[in-house]
Amino acid sequence: MKARVHVMLKNGVLDPQGEAVRHALGAMGFDGVNGVRQGKVIELDLNDGATQADVEVMCEKLLANTVIESYTVEMG
Amino acid sequence: MKARVHVMLKNGVLDPQGEAVRHALGAMGFDGVNGVRQGKVIELDLNDGATQADVEVMCEKLLANTVIESYTVEMG
Repeated sequence: MKARVHVMLKNGVLDPQGEAVRHALGAMGFDGVNGVRQGKVIELDLNDGATQADVEVMCEKLLANTVIESYTVEMG
Repeated sequence: MKARVHVMLKNGVLDPQGEAVRHALGAMGFDGVNGVRQGKVIELDLNDGATQADVEVMCEKLLANTVIESYTVEMG
């Protein structure tokens, strides 16, 4: 089974990658981009029987830095 | 309005980041992880009236390297 994890910087944490993308889009003539946040998406291919709780433990221990990042898990 | 773009390496393209995560999870005792792919998620805050086609142009020109990466756009 598949699980997809999104890891984003928390609100209020400076996101230089996102800011660079926003700036580049403006320089390329794309108006109307008010903000950009960039994060990671991690797709896991798991044995059947894995639960969302298992994936959340992986997030807490490895995939996300919970001091500055938040994560969401989608199973299926 | 918000748009969310997922950028993933195409199938068949080596993903060293994902491979490193898979290896680390195994070393930490998480069994049953058969594969990991890591990509980017980019959240755009756009002026009202922006369309999915606009965002797809941004992907083609800046956000994704379409030689090795595929992207999907979700509006809303």
